[in-house]
Amino acid sequence: MERLLPTVDTSEDKKFLLQLGCVTMLLHDLGHGPFSHVSEKAFGIEHEDMTANLLDYPEIAGILEKHSLPISRMKNILTGTNPPQDALISQFVSSQLDCDRIDYLLRDAYFAGVGFGNIDLPRIVRMFKVHKENGPWKGLAVSLNKGHYTLESYILSRHLMYQDVYYHKATRGAELLVRKAIKRAADIADSSTLPELLHFLAEGREPTVDEMLRLDDHELFSILAKWSKSNDQILSDLSTRFIDRKLLKTIELSHPKLSAWISEDIGPKVNQLAERNGFNPEYYCPVDSHSDTPYEPYTPGEEQSVTTSIFLYDEERKIKEISAVSDVVNALSKTKYNDRLYVPAKIFSEAKDLFA
Amino acid sequence: MERLLPTVDTSEDKKFLLQLGCVTMLLHDLGHGPFSHVSEKAFGIEHEDMTANLLDYPEIAGILEKHSLPISRMKNILTGTNPPQDALISQFVSSQLDCDRIDYLLRDAYFAGVGFGNIDLPRIVRMFKVHKENGPWKGLAVSLNKGHYTLESYILSRHLMYQDVYYHKATRGAELLVRKAIKRAADIADSSTLPELLHFLAEGREPTVDEMLRLDDHELFSILAKWSKSNDQILSDLSTRFIDRKLLKTIELSHPKLSAWISEDIGPKVNQLAERNGFNPEYYCPVDSHSDTPYEPYTPGEEQSVTTSIFLYDEERKIKEISAVSDVVNALSKTKYNDRLYVPAKIFSEAKDLFA
Amino acid sequence: MERLLPTVDTSEDKKFLLQLGCVTMLLHDLGHGPFSHVSEKAFGIEHEDMTANLLDYPEIAGILEKHSLPISRMKNILTGTNPPQDALISQFVSSQLDCDRIDYLLRDAYFAGVGFGNIDLPRIVRMFKVHKENGPWKGLAVSLNKGHYTLESYILSRHLMYQDVYYHKATRGAELLVRKAIKRAADIADSSTLPELLHFLAEGREPTVDEMLRLDDHELFSILAKWSKSNDQILSDLSTRFIDRKLLKTIELSHPKLSAWISEDIGPKVNQLAERNGFNPEYYCPVDSHSDTPYEPYTPGEEQSVTTSIFLYDEERKIKEISAVSDVVNALSKTKYNDRLYVPAKIFSEAKDLFA
Amino acid sequence: MERLLPTVDTSEDKKFLLQLGCVTMLLHDLGHGPFSHVSEKAFGIEHEDMTANLLDYPEIAGILEKHSLPISRMKNILTGTNPPQDALISQFVSSQLDCDRIDYLLRDAYFAGVGFGNIDLPRIVRMFKVHKENGPWKGLAVSLNKGHYTLESYILSRHLMYQDVYYHKATRGAELLVRKAIKRAADIADSSTLPELLHFLAEGREPTVDEMLRLDDHELFSILAKWSKSNDQILSDLSTRFIDRKLLKTIELSHPKLSAWISEDIGPKVNQLAERNGFNPEYYCPVDSHSDTPYEPYTPGEEQSVTTSIFLYDEERKIKEISAVSDVVNALSKTKYNDRLYVPAKIFSEAKDLFA
Repeated sequence: MERLLPTVDTSEDKKFLLQLGCVTMLLHDLGHGPFSHVSEKAFGIEHEDMTANLLDYPEIAGILEKHSLPISRMKNILTGTNPPQDALISQFVSSQLDCDRIDYLLRDAYFAGVGFGNIDLPRIVRMFKVHKENGPWKGLAVSLNKGHYTLESYILSRHLMYQDVYYHKATRGAELLVRKAIKRAADIADSSTLPELLHFLAEGREPTVDEMLRLDDHELFSILAKWSKSNDQILSDLSTRFIDRKLLKTIELSHPKLSAWISEDIGPKVNQLAERNGFNPEYYCPVDSHSDTPYEPYTPGEEQSVTTSIFLYDEERKIKEISAVSDVVNALSKTKYNDRLYVPAKIFSEAKDLFA
Repeated sequence: MERLLPTVDTSEDKKFLLQLGCVTMLLHDLGHGPFSHVSEKAFGIEHEDMTANLLDYPEIAGILEKHSLPISRMKNILTGTNPPQDALISQFVSSQLDCDRIDYLLRDAYFAGVGFGNIDLPRIVRMFKVHKENGPWKGLAVSLNKGHYTLESYILSRHLMYQDVYYHKATRGAELLVRKAIKRAADIADSSTLPELLHFLAEGREPTVDEMLRLDDHELFSILAKWSKSNDQILSDLSTRFIDRKLLKTIELSHPKLSAWISEDIGPKVNQLAERNGFNPEYYCPVDSHSDTPYEPYTPGEEQSVTTSIFLYDEERKIKEISAVSDVVNALSKTKYNDRLYVPAKIFSEAKDLFA
Repeated sequence: MERLLPTVDTSEDKKFLLQLGCVTMLLHDLGHGPFSHVSEKAFGIEHEDMTANLLDYPEIAGILEKHSLPISRMKNILTGTNPPQDALISQFVSSQLDCDRIDYLLRDAYFAGVGFGNIDLPRIVRMFKVHKENGPWKGLAVSLNKGHYTLESYILSRHLMYQDVYYHKATRGAELLVRKAIKRAADIADSSTLPELLHFLAEGREPTVDEMLRLDDHELFSILAKWSKSNDQILSDLSTRFIDRKLLKTIELSHPKLSAWISEDIGPKVNQLAERNGFNPEYYCPVDSHSDTPYEPYTPGEEQSVTTSIFLYDEERKIKEISAVSDVVNALSKTKYNDRLYVPAKIFSEAKDLFA
Repeated sequence: MERLLPTVDTSEDKKFLLQLGCVTMLLHDLGHGPFSHVSEKAFGIEHEDMTANLLDYPEIAGILEKHSLPISRMKNILTGTNPPQDALISQFVSSQLDCDRIDYLLRDAYFAGVGFGNIDLPRIVRMFKVHKENGPWKGLAVSLNKGHYTLESYILSRHLMYQDVYYHKATRGAELLVRKAIKRAADIADSSTLPELLHFLAEGREPTVDEMLRLDDHELFSILAKWSKSNDQILSDLSTRFIDRKLLKTIELSHPKLSAWISEDIGPKVNQLAERNGFNPEYYCPVDSHSDTPYEPYTPGEEQSVTTSIFLYDEERKIKEISAVSDVVNALSKTKYNDRLYVPAKIFSEAKDLFA
């Protein structure tokens, strides 16, 4: 951004725009709760809303105001409802090649120790230029054609991280146990079980900003440790399974199996099997569905799509969208659905036979 | 191979097979001449033939015989004409996931300093098992389904190395100058110009093994340095351009342009333009065509295809070919053609206008 | 170890010895409490004792017994009280080049993102041979002289990690706040403040194994979060400072200053200054002393020193200790003392002036 | 330099100074001949002189003049004879922490594949500040104390590269063969043997700039290949040994052995042994002596020493030289001498016995 902003045609002060962009990028993930997406689903919140709430939080708002950073403008950028003059910053904050994706890929590949998150960020950055000509791309960052292969590699990296790390059956299995434990605690809503910080679950409301700030990963781990000693058999078992990594086992519901599950009453049969073995299927036999579109191609006419898609110059410096010129990116433009049935190890083999 | 061989069902000694495989892999690229594929084309040879010739070379044959390594069997493996019992070794020596590809990708990515050659070799290796059941895959290495994404990443890496490194316009442009200089020296076949080591060019024969062994990169560099002082204007200019990196300039012949080149007499017009400016088009206006199929899918019925393709177990340990289960690999199964017209910088702009 | 054990002269089964060594190495750090050395000091325990206790813990002892692994022999290796025939395993478990040091250096350098922890472990390992001749080194691993420089680099790496990471003033400052908070909670021993898991502090006893197992990092973070809302002003302040990273500030007590501190009554003056400003010096003005000897040279005659020091073959395969042949290692054989006075930022400048 | 120059107190244009510094750094190694230090010794030249000559070479001087870069000022910086106002640039071009050392360490460690060349360059650079106060350090770069450990690591890295890579017995042994082959060719000075490019050897003069420019590594390799077919037995054998990596063998002349060599007539005995076996000792029994001082401490009073040594601020921002505060650097301030006798393998064992 430091390299591109000076080439933009605007009457605003460049230093101010740079600060606005950097601070928005810095704060964009502020609203994540414990275990990230786990708490979003379990608490019924969206981290983007929480981020927006936090910008108004006195401690943060005070600093932003001191530096004359307009909070409502930042919120618009964060939610993609910004006016055209902030389109370039919006590209950096929230697009298919934004600071968020680059940040989590580099970080998670490093800490997960997998080779394929290895993005050549300096080269990606160097290849971008601000488009000067009039039309929908005016003022946006477009990559030189030379950046083509580095971008292909980036999009595949993200795809591989989703399939092999974020959606790994063990990762998702551990997350499911936490979500089901929280659900159980909320369902029984026993005041001795539900710690003060989670009372909002019993009260059927969203957590306040203060509650969210106190609810970090450590707190949730500590709560789960306490629950593992609970008198409620289900709560205690789910928490203990999480702590001891005794995950539920997975049956991949590929297309024919998913239809069978839906149309041939296999679902109820699995539930009966679980109940016969003393497992409440509501907690012990979840179907985990998730999907990812590694790259969403540009939809002409949809305004936001101009900002969020990735464009290249061709040889004559005409603009082409990357999925239109790359077979690989085109192949990665399909949504990939994953559905898995989780069941306790004890009934795994019998449950599998139901699909035979 | 050390891990897989012990699980193979064979009456032969495993230690001998391991040695046979390792030595064949070690020697498979022995026949490369100076500047690799440049000399192959310029000298009209194939490095695979030269490798086979070198196995019979006394110094090497002597060592192989001392260790009871059967030269003809090694040659069969190297040319893919081996009997079925050597299919596993053949997979390692010459397939779409062989020691050659893995070796050059890791090495060239390291020395070119590009991130995307980063193959997770240990994981690829760990995922392979020898297939035990009868049928065409018996005795071959098949990857567990878990290796899926690492293999996708490997195939994309190879694709990116071809497009961004091996077929880079500067790499190919430098190679072209060397080839054209050698062609020029052979065409004028002047005994004062053609060093003894290249007499075979004037004699219209292939180089002998001894000549090839002496013709290393340094020798060719030294010859080019000498040629840069030649009295032949063309030979001197081509060699000087190579040494000073004054490459020819490229016009990408994408599909419509290539048809125009062929059907609308643009070729002859470029040649006339070159001649008017004192450039012999035979040496100065080459079209460089190359193509790569990142992954050749399995063709049922074709015997060799069983050995050279990459197969995975699915969840039920049935065998599936990788392009059948991966959209990315499927997209990478198309042949990618690149055609470029090279011309001297002096006539570049005018040549480009001919396509307008 | 896998490479060296087969060359050892022993009547015991090599596979058993390998398993014994590997399991002992795997378990050697089992007894670490929350925040590692912080809890050791705050709880008055030693992690080595806790590791020994854990080997008798039913869940672990059961597994060891099932595999016929002798617990008392493992304990002797862990405490360095093993008989000579276990000296080689003892070298790997507990010496100046043991699995512990190599493990923490590689891991901490990776996660701290510093370059100098980069040990060439494969080369270090490859250079070691088992000494065959009679005498004190018989059966021990000695490095070929070629490994000399890699070992110099390893010893310097460890030194740099201690000085720049483990003893960094911010690292130590954060640890101090936790220790002082725990001390405060123990001092006031208020049952509403001291969570059940820390009752042992009030009871003046060591924690039980069960308590230690439950007291993980998350639990301690959660306790500190609770303490930050405590009615006790000091406890609340220390915990809040830790959570908000408002560390105490440091005054390095280099040699002249340390003597001044001791001999010229600067200590009491700092305490008075603190008290005048409302800080209890017992919690707010600690002197943090630590020392490290990057390499302890061999002391002839001391039996254990043969196992814990690092030896090299010289050119004639005579044994030399590394500090005797390397000026660098010799320089690193001095104990390095660090003493720092920590004070609240508010009185930092005035406290500093006391030393002027 | 880009970061430090703006903080310097000077009346000259900062952009000009930056360009002057960068171009001087870029060109500082221009004068290296084939195989670097091998050709310096064999041809009797110094690469620094050759670099100075090349700055006057029309092709280069033309470019420098076009950009108003003063050649004589650059030469003064390159030879350390610059006036005080260029001291900062001189530090970057030629000191104990200059672009040359950092360049070769990073490059050679990467290509040699050794871990210990791993310098944390960004951190080293970030720690330097320009000293503002009057006195000998005014205008020079001094490191913050925080950079201390990174600098220790850098100095050790350089030491290890010298001992384990640059002075490795195989590296030096191969270089010796080349030097002795060139010496032999000069000694026999046979016009059919000495290629035109090396005629200067027979003429007893230094090579001209033109000759040096044409004498690259490839040319020397090619000459050695030709010599390996020479009729002169010694020239042919030395060249063949180099090409086939049949190096001479080494006897380390540690202190007692070196004295024995000198005082007890072992030298003449080795020579007699060689002659009896048909080896001319002038070419086949060289003693290779080299030495390195990993870090030369500051000598107060010696003006240049202020620029070439490495200084740190201490806590009170007083300046201390690094060897005065670091035991490790102090240990690395001793000159390390290495002397090796090389002899043909055939007489190695007998030669070794002479020292017994």
